[in-house]
Parts: sequence; C-alpha cells; structure tokens
Amino acid sequence: MNKKRGQQSIVFTTPPVITSAANIVGPMEGEGVLTEFYDHILKDNLDDNDSWEKCESSMMEWALKTAIKKDQSSVNDVDYVLAGDLLNQLMSTHFAIRNVGRPFLGMYGACSTLAQSMLVGSMLIDGGFANKVAVAVSSHHDAAERQYRFPTELGVQRPLVSQWTVTGSGALVISGAGDGPRITTATVGKIIDIGIKDPNAMGPAMAPAAADTLWSHFDDTGRQPSYYDMIYTGDLGSVGKALVVELFKERGVDLTAVYEDCGCMIFRQEQDAHAGASGCASSAVVFAGYIYRMLKRQKLRKVLLVGTGSLHSTTSYQQKESIPCIAHAVAVEI
Amino acid sequence: MNKKRGQQSIVFTTPPVITSAANIVGPMEGEGVLTEFYDHILKDNLDDNDSWEKCESSMMEWALKTAIKKDQSSVNDVDYVLAGDLLNQLMSTHFAIRNVGRPFLGMYGACSTLAQSMLVGSMLIDGGFANKVAVAVSSHHDAAERQYRFPTELGVQRPLVSQWTVTGSGALVISGAGDGPRITTATVGKIIDIGIKDPNAMGPAMAPAAADTLWSHFDDTGRQPSYYDMIYTGDLGSVGKALVVELFKERGVDLTAVYEDCGCMIFRQEQDAHAGASGCASSAVVFAGYIYRMLKRQKLRKVLLVGTGSLHSTTSYQQKESIPCIAHAVAVEI
Repeated sequence: MNKKRGQQSIVFTTPPVITSAANIVGPMEGEGVLTEFYDHILKDNLDDNDSWEKCESSMMEWALKTAIKKDQSSVNDVDYVLAGDLLNQLMSTHFAIRNVGRPFLGMYGACSTLAQSMLVGSMLIDGGFANKVAVAVSSHHDAAERQYRFPTELGVQRPLVSQWTVTGSGALVISGAGDGPRITTATVGKIIDIGIKDPNAMGPAMAPAAADTLWSHFDDTGRQPSYYDMIYTGDLGSVGKALVVELFKERGVDLTAVYEDCGCMIFRQEQDAHAGASGCASSAVVFAGYIYRMLKRQKLRKVLLVGTGSLHSTTSYQQKESIPCIAHAVAVEI
Repeated sequence: MNKKRGQQSIVFTTPPVITSAANIVGPMEGEGVLTEFYDHILKDNLDDNDSWEKCESSMMEWALKTAIKKDQSSVNDVDYVLAGDLLNQLMSTHFAIRNVGRPFLGMYGACSTLAQSMLVGSMLIDGGFANKVAVAVSSHHDAAERQYRFPTELGVQRPLVSQWTVTGSGALVISGAGDGPRITTATVGKIIDIGIKDPNAMGPAMAPAAADTLWSHFDDTGRQPSYYDMIYTGDLGSVGKALVVELFKERGVDLTAVYEDCGCMIFRQEQDAHAGASGCASSAVVFAGYIYRMLKRQKLRKVLLVGTGSLHSTTSYQQKESIPCIAHAVAVEI
C-alpha cells in the first residue's frame, strides 16, 4: 500500500502509539516554566560526571531507560533505538547507547532529531520491521557552548537574538499497539538555506524551513492549521517564531491561535535566556513532558510537532558558509 | 506482516532493487587497484573548490546526481535522500543536499553510514513509504585528517596500524521495482566497545563489532558464510580483517574463502596506505563500483556488505574514552 501523500508526507496505515515518554533537565530548566512536567532535575550541570559531555550522555541513558521502564517493558523488548545529539560524531548518543545494548540507528538532524527519529521509528513500526522502538535526543548547554562558540567559562556576552541551549534529554517508546497518542502522519523536510550566516541567529535561519515544511504538510494532507489544537515548532525562539507567523500572514493565513514554539515555553523571562531555548532537548523535554501529558489527559487531542534543525558546523561557519536548515513534522493524535 | 528475524535482522517482503550506482574518487584512489571501476577521478584533492570540505561536498553532489541520471530518473523522482559523512554535523552532506532539494534524512554511523542508509532506505521502500530513494556517503582524506588528527600539512608520521581515509563518494538509487541486484535482508548492529582507546587503531576496534553483526546475521537468518559468494566488511584494513578471521576461527568457522575487506581493496601496496583504506567512502566507492558491477554482470550473485563504523570523536578521545563501534549488514542478491 502506498502511504505517500503529495511530495513530502506519509500517512501511517496503523498509526504507531507513543506508549511512554520520559525527560530529564538541568537545574536552570528545572527552575523554568515547565518545572512540574520534568521527571528529574539535575542538581548541577555535571551531576557527578567528569565532563559536560559525559553528563549529557548519562542524561540520555537515564531518559531512555526511564521511558522503557514507564512502558513496563525491558530493554530487550525494544527492537531498535534511534537517537542523536548535537555533539561532533553524536558523542553523547554513542556513549549512552553503548550501555543499552540494542540494535541502533544514529540520526542527525541537529535540533530536528527528535522529530526525525519519531518519523523514521514510526515507519519501522508501520512498515512491519519492528514492534517497539525507543527514540532519544539530548543537548547540554555547556557542552554545546564550548563546541559551537567560545570556551563556556569565558562567559562571552550574547546578542539578544541568540538562544540558550537546553540541558536535558527526552525519550519516547513507540509501539505497534497499546494505549496512548498515535503518530498519524509525518512530513519529511527539505534543506532550506536563505543565506543567513550568523550562527547566533539560528531562529531566523530556521524559520523559513519550518514554514516550508508546514506548507508542505498542509498541501500534502489537505489539512488546515485549524485541524490541530496546537502546532509546536522545536526551537525557533521568539524571533524565529515571529517570522513563521509573518511568513504565514503574507500568504493570508493567521497561525497565532494554534501556534507556539517549544523554545519559548521553557525559560522564564527573568532567566535571561534572550530569544528563548534551543538544542535537540528543546522540543524533546517539552514534548516528552508537557505535550505528552496534555495528550494523555486529552487536554490536547491533535498536535503537530515540527522539529527544526540548523545544520551548520563551526567549520562551515569559519569557511563563511550560510546556514542550511531543515524541519520535520509529525502529527500526534489521540 | 512481521519482517523481523531473530534479534537484529529483517527480511524484506519485496526486496528493493539497487537500480543504479555511481562513484567518484580522489587522485590517489584513482591510481589504486580499482581504477577501472570509478566513474570519475578528481585531478587533485581540491578540484577547484575553496576547501577540502567543500570538495567533499561537491563529490557527494556529483555522485548523487550521477546515480540519479544513470537511473534515467530526475531528481524529483526521488522520494527521500538518506546520506551522511564523517565531518562534524555532517557538513559535506548538508551542503551537497542543499543543492538537491528533496526530502532528506541525515544518517550517522561513521563509516557504516552507507550500509545504514541502504537498510533504512530499503525499509522505507518495502514499508510502502517510498518508491525510490537515493543514498550517498562521502569522506575526504585531508578534511578528515585535520578534523580528527593533526593539521594535514604537518605530515605527521603515521603508525603502521593506521589507515588512510578515502577521498571519494558513492551513491545508489534504490527502487521498489526495476532490474538489478536486490537488498534481501539486513542486520542492524549494536554498539560494541572492547576498550581500545587508540584512534589510530580503528580496524582492531571495529573488528569485534563486525564479527558480532556477522554472527547475529547468521544466527537470525539461519544462513552460513558459504551462502554468500563474498562477504565484504567496510574498512577494517589488514589488521582488523585478520582479527575478524581470527574471531571466527575461535568459534570453528573458516571465513577466508568468502571474505574480503573493502579497505584492503583500494590502494596498491606501494601506495603506502599502511593498514589500508578507511572512511565512509571506503565501502561506498568499492560497493558502488566494483561490487555493483560484478553483481550486474552476475560474476557475484550473493554478497553481504558489512559497513563498519568507529563512533568516537576527538572530544571523546581527549576525555580518554574508549572507541564505541558498530556494524550494519545488508545482503544484496541477483
């Protein structure tokens, strides 16, 4: 059966079920808006690890194993793990998954990695290749800062358009059967690059990719924005979010009633995160906490999660290249 | 229909067809053993690009577009592109795919990325999500050297166990129908880490992962090594290859009659590549050239390709971590 819709979308025949979710965050995130929706809050950014990178890795391992436990499954019930992070060569992921011991597929979509892993994992289940998959992503502010920008301890002044990388990890178990919200459709993004070169301005760089994937999703599925109770982008922050609203307004569509960005939901204004949160964990800790629980409680029934990724590296930036971006969408309904 | 076999393997119901293949290599590879099996050989390691990284990117773009052309398809016939490379944040891939404009999924399995992309791409086709996918991987000796080790121009003396990263790219078009060799089964690897910490000794580090995936493949499918005309690992080099043979010998199985490593097939002895070739492009330029043509000519009828990946980063190495490794297997038959 052909499950393709239009150019970029798919409709699952037997929509896979998100049977459990777990998240973990750092102390700053724990003091933020969504504090009651986190499973665990670290006491500090190292949490007794030797390095920030190893701390990130241990968060992912914890989130994965906790999601599997909440699913009342054992690790061996998971057919595949799909995961990724922002560190070079997915360092956090590989050291986390080394301790899980299941067949593994490494995903990279920068901060869109959760949405990418959800849609590929759902294809594996609906395609008959797996009964149960686990997906996980992570990011760590201090590890990302020293890799992408400056030595973290330097405390360089950040421009107001910049965002704060979330310290945290989110994991989901996706199953062929069971109770819970279901992944019904997905839209795979194309790489969009509008020529922005400032790696502090990732929200504005990613906004056109988010808008492109959203348009394709509506075109391919025939749905309107109002079909959804809420549409959440991953980590556009306040500047990127305003741009998406503007891009839709130009085409005569008012998104504001049903649209929010996960990057605008994590920190309080007084936490001085500037344009908001970013990082793989931005959409992951919000989806695996607040959104998942709202779906389970049926406070939300139809959600579109649009993971957004900025695909540059320090090398591409130093070589004066612009920032290629991508966005992947998954519709989750109960 | 459940397509799982055993713990780690799958059998495709309608085995996807590799309808075309293309490859491109640097000048040193072009002077190697398989010179007649390359579609294009660069005149130098920059090929009129500003940087080695951009050269790598342009090789991938060329390989992808050439494979699509050989398939007598247009870029728009490709439902998804799955691709990856070794550079931080998959830099070569993202800049190549930016110029392709199709829905994209970023894969990371270090030098196992071709096999991973082939098996995920085949799942998308056999699962009904796509009619045609293109997969591509690349590596570039000079770009990898300066990222992973020392400034390339320094010309640091290399230990004899070390391997030479292949400059090149390979791409395949995989279709739901058509003529050509078919991907019949696949085995997804687990992360195996035996504690090796020397990033020059990647062959020995990866050999146990290759052996583990091979054993799982034989266990899950009930096949013997002799089922295959040839089994090719990706880039273990001479030291890693000898270790795989030894690990099988310990369990009473002689692999030697049907086993070769792509990393031992590329350079001539006098080219001084030490233990052989490595990099994403090692298995890719051999598979998309020599092996694919031998399959098309039916000189080989049953091949098992075992992509092997060393999942460390410079950060993990500097933090004195050992090297997690993985291997994924795809059976290709005509």
